[in-house]
Amino acid sequence: MTIATSATVGVALFGLGRAGSFHIQSLGLAAEEAQLRWVFDVDAEKRSAFARRAGCRAAADPREALADPAVDAVIVATPTQTHFGHVFPALEAGKAVLTEKPLGVSIEEIDRCFAAAAAGQPLFVAFQRRFDPSFAELVDRAHAGEIGKLQFVRSVSRDSPVPSLEYLRTSGGIFHDCVVHDLDMVCQIIGENPTRVAAFASNFLPEIRALDDFDNATVSLAFPGGALATIDVSRASAFGYDQRIEVFGDAGMIEAGNRPRTSVTRASSEGNFGARIDHSFPTRYRDAYLAELRAFLACVRDGKPAPISHAQVRLNHQLADAAEESARTNRVVFL
Amino acid sequence: MTIATSATVGVALFGLGRAGSFHIQSLGLAAEEAQLRWVFDVDAEKRSAFARRAGCRAAADPREALADPAVDAVIVATPTQTHFGHVFPALEAGKAVLTEKPLGVSIEEIDRCFAAAAAGQPLFVAFQRRFDPSFAELVDRAHAGEIGKLQFVRSVSRDSPVPSLEYLRTSGGIFHDCVVHDLDMVCQIIGENPTRVAAFASNFLPEIRALDDFDNATVSLAFPGGALATIDVSRASAFGYDQRIEVFGDAGMIEAGNRPRTSVTRASSEGNFGARIDHSFPTRYRDAYLAELRAFLACVRDGKPAPISHAQVRLNHQLADAAEESARTNRVVFL
Amino acid sequence: MTIATSATVGVALFGLGRAGSFHIQSLGLAAEEAQLRWVFDVDAEKRSAFARRAGCRAAADPREALADPAVDAVIVATPTQTHFGHVFPALEAGKAVLTEKPLGVSIEEIDRCFAAAAAGQPLFVAFQRRFDPSFAELVDRAHAGEIGKLQFVRSVSRDSPVPSLEYLRTSGGIFHDCVVHDLDMVCQIIGENPTRVAAFASNFLPEIRALDDFDNATVSLAFPGGALATIDVSRASAFGYDQRIEVFGDAGMIEAGNRPRTSVTRASSEGNFGARIDHSFPTRYRDAYLAELRAFLACVRDGKPAPISHAQVRLNHQLADAAEESARTNRVVFL
Amino acid sequence: MTIATSATVGVALFGLGRAGSFHIQSLGLAAEEAQLRWVFDVDAEKRSAFARRAGCRAAADPREALADPAVDAVIVATPTQTHFGHVFPALEAGKAVLTEKPLGVSIEEIDRCFAAAAAGQPLFVAFQRRFDPSFAELVDRAHAGEIGKLQFVRSVSRDSPVPSLEYLRTSGGIFHDCVVHDLDMVCQIIGENPTRVAAFASNFLPEIRALDDFDNATVSLAFPGGALATIDVSRASAFGYDQRIEVFGDAGMIEAGNRPRTSVTRASSEGNFGARIDHSFPTRYRDAYLAELRAFLACVRDGKPAPISHAQVRLNHQLADAAEESARTNRVVFL
Repeated sequence: MTIATSATVGVALFGLGRAGSFHIQSLGLAAEEAQLRWVFDVDAEKRSAFARRAGCRAAADPREALADPAVDAVIVATPTQTHFGHVFPALEAGKAVLTEKPLGVSIEEIDRCFAAAAAGQPLFVAFQRRFDPSFAELVDRAHAGEIGKLQFVRSVSRDSPVPSLEYLRTSGGIFHDCVVHDLDMVCQIIGENPTRVAAFASNFLPEIRALDDFDNATVSLAFPGGALATIDVSRASAFGYDQRIEVFGDAGMIEAGNRPRTSVTRASSEGNFGARIDHSFPTRYRDAYLAELRAFLACVRDGKPAPISHAQVRLNHQLADAAEESARTNRVVFL
Repeated sequence: MTIATSATVGVALFGLGRAGSFHIQSLGLAAEEAQLRWVFDVDAEKRSAFARRAGCRAAADPREALADPAVDAVIVATPTQTHFGHVFPALEAGKAVLTEKPLGVSIEEIDRCFAAAAAGQPLFVAFQRRFDPSFAELVDRAHAGEIGKLQFVRSVSRDSPVPSLEYLRTSGGIFHDCVVHDLDMVCQIIGENPTRVAAFASNFLPEIRALDDFDNATVSLAFPGGALATIDVSRASAFGYDQRIEVFGDAGMIEAGNRPRTSVTRASSEGNFGARIDHSFPTRYRDAYLAELRAFLACVRDGKPAPISHAQVRLNHQLADAAEESARTNRVVFL
Repeated sequence: MTIATSATVGVALFGLGRAGSFHIQSLGLAAEEAQLRWVFDVDAEKRSAFARRAGCRAAADPREALADPAVDAVIVATPTQTHFGHVFPALEAGKAVLTEKPLGVSIEEIDRCFAAAAAGQPLFVAFQRRFDPSFAELVDRAHAGEIGKLQFVRSVSRDSPVPSLEYLRTSGGIFHDCVVHDLDMVCQIIGENPTRVAAFASNFLPEIRALDDFDNATVSLAFPGGALATIDVSRASAFGYDQRIEVFGDAGMIEAGNRPRTSVTRASSEGNFGARIDHSFPTRYRDAYLAELRAFLACVRDGKPAPISHAQVRLNHQLADAAEESARTNRVVFL
Repeated sequence: MTIATSATVGVALFGLGRAGSFHIQSLGLAAEEAQLRWVFDVDAEKRSAFARRAGCRAAADPREALADPAVDAVIVATPTQTHFGHVFPALEAGKAVLTEKPLGVSIEEIDRCFAAAAAGQPLFVAFQRRFDPSFAELVDRAHAGEIGKLQFVRSVSRDSPVPSLEYLRTSGGIFHDCVVHDLDMVCQIIGENPTRVAAFASNFLPEIRALDDFDNATVSLAFPGGALATIDVSRASAFGYDQRIEVFGDAGMIEAGNRPRTSVTRASSEGNFGARIDHSFPTRYRDAYLAELRAFLACVRDGKPAPISHAQVRLNHQLADAAEESARTNRVVFL
């Protein structure tokens, strides 16, 4: 088992883009637990400038960082389709790894990574919603029986703003990029693997249609114990980043809603007005990313396995495949 | 004791204006309990037209209705300053009487009415907020100990729209017309008579200033057991009829808020938008007026005393006087 | 065209059970527009007692009422499976008819009724949610373009309490009894006929399983213009009658939520507590039933066609069939 | 004018208790703008341990830190009654100073400090509520005319948990310790100095009565332009740290409410349940303390005066005195 070699975990961060920036913020808040030693980015200037400012080293090649025994853990925050290419060597080098999903673009890549982590180093595939304080509370309370037997879950996710075309091109499509998060939450809440999936999808934005991708989708799931679920997602929410879950049980309902940016409301002759919700994921999930980093660091420090298992990562990938197949063929897909 | 002579209470209604109209609506909904037999209004045409439509008799003189033994109860809904002139003869004729506050313009008139009701007929001086489902629930729960020892009450009342100048001229002023309702609720909630009153008042509307009346006022009250209260009122709320109460106790807080007109909300890039609250008192207090009428009819039927006592009606009048005195003299008034 | 023969519409009411009682309440509030002349119920004692109290006539046979020329309109509030048996003769007798859905148990019965109404008398098949103030406002505002192009609708309906076994036995099943209301609203909002339906259903309550019926269901719909919709329903909501609609467009989102019974909230060390929502449909849809009756009376008075067309009633029936077929076969059904 | 001698502001922090801890958190988040160079605390062990961990120096005597030219700014976070003793020498040493109110226990101490800052170094007396995102937004929008002419303000503040007896003993009493924050906000919102103050106060907690202090108070204020205000405070809120402001204008109302800790709600047969609000000031005002620190650092860097003027600090002190005098004498106090 990989255990941090000193009180604080030595970290290398690969990728200084959108995902890298919120990991940097989290590392600042968890400064007593982790020390950033190396950064890598394909942009040489960016990595050098950042390293100077942060007082760490810039790697021209990721292998420099992997060769440093002071590095206990690698955070892979590079573009989605390069995750496997960075995660696999890091695991082979014996490092603990944290990466946002996806781990790879296929079940094979997923399996190879978990095989490479067989020595015991934590391989932490982060579905960050699990670490959102509101969603985590919802899951805990649903599992604690507060609303009785769980019969139905609705998960809604709407992006704001629409991701860039550059991002969308390599995103893997709406099912693997977005819906997979909802699938992960829904299955975690119900606590079973679904048996049937039905999905519809459509595209209103021409640039998304041109990619043969979708900007709207619904997914229905049936579980062996009788529970049902629906998921609805959109790439373009005009009113901010809309991420909610509703769980219905035979003794009540639990909802985790959005949060307005401030608590200010106004009453006028036109009605009552509240603040906008958070605009996008870096603010909405700020606390989640920090909680996720702390959970990862605890795994590294204590040699514990990551809380999201190989089976769960596999299932999420397969369900996203199944949902996409259903949407493209207009058939119910059995699992 | 006056007890209705048949299963349904025979009613005479004096006044077919603003107040009369919501009593008529309530009588329609309580049709199985009460039968409208007479109406009186100073406008001969109005009373005749209404009587024809409603299938009852129109009194050219209120005494015609009072002389009818089929009339068990009189509802006085004439202009404020004429209440006493109608209530007193009705009580002397042995009828049960329902009137919205004020009963009279002085303590003397109040005392004479209750003396005239000494034979036992119900004299029901309606402070309609007591019958509002939300306010009534708040009072019951505060008294049931849900929030522990009561330490503070805030009552807010804002008119919408601004009453007509014609009405304001005979309204008795903001303290006797508006604040008295808040005083009634605050004292009912605390369950004590206050010992000190401090009030400030101001006027932004020139037409109200011209009447030597106020359009904004605050009142603070101190009670013997240590509880405190504040009241704030306005004659001109731009966003609808704003009537709320907050009670703070050492184990929690209970609030009774406004209700939006519908449950529709909208999220946009500007924020979250809810419906307007009820515009004015006939809609906000529709349920209260019905509950108040039913409570009155129950008193008539069962020969029970009215739920608002002589002492409470007197106290409300004296407190309104004290608050106005405080506002006009800038002194704390002791009671 | 059937036009009321006097200022007020002469009404016969068939059925004095659950549905009859809210029509009676509405007739009391619309007394100036309609006069109840006849009632019929299979329970002879019930109809006689009611007629005595209400001052109308009791029909031992519905044909007595249909033969009376003073009857302009018939309200059919008998058990679901008997609707056609009462509606059809009433239409043949030239009367305007108001009935809650379903009009009949098959497309054939629906078509025969509308054929019988070809002379022009209003045949008003009431989907009462259309007349709910909040839902009606949601539809109007969505159609007015407030949230741009409509892309997604979610409709949720949860019964409270669970209907009686007696009722369930003749209810037609969850798709024809419940989901049909959601289908009606969803299609009205989108303004298109869906092309594909996918449904899952399950049963947690043994007594419902024994009827080969379901207590939970989800339905997904795809529309030709790209809009998608989900419906989720339950027979057993522990927290009250849960009826909500959410509409998502490219410029925002409109929701129509439940209403708490009072505006009272409480803050304590455990959190913030609000009132229960309305328990069941007679209170939740009280305003809707009144609005629906007034709309019907206006049709009768003015000889206007009913606002819900033959095509819409047919479509709702066919969609409920399609959803049930999808749930029973686990296939996507194309329309 | 004192301007930071390098890109980042060199900071000394005096006091490592409750107030110190949230300044330390803020300094961590503003690491790119400020560098902590010295800490001082009367507890030698605490200051040494902290300095070791944070990589700064521990001062046995505050004068060591004041003598260091690398120190641009001093944050005074020592107990309330020692503020003046630390602030004054720091200003005399030419350092910029940030301290939470109070600056001193008398008008004389306040005046002496501002005289000592006459050379131009920022003296930033922090009323942290001004920097709370919700309150700051409320003020900006009220001043921008969103609700027309301002006529009334209500400010409520309720502590949770009850401060320790040790703290209360030196707190200066409820008017100088708590109410002064509400007075600051109310006067900032109205933009005038009040002319009359009326206050009532009481004590339910025996330990607070024993200190001749109060645990509940209400204050009313009248402003020259006609605006009115009420303040109500409590030392013991059972449901968390309750801090709200409501502003009423002739075109509407703006409120800044509390925030629940998570967005999770639950519906049950008992009603709807939301999360608790923040428990106490370090969490409620976390963002405010950070914003306040950033505002201070900007003053130091750019040589700008602090946003809260000498006149405002004086006025707040005088108003707290006046309110206490009113409460103790039961008289309206004129200013």
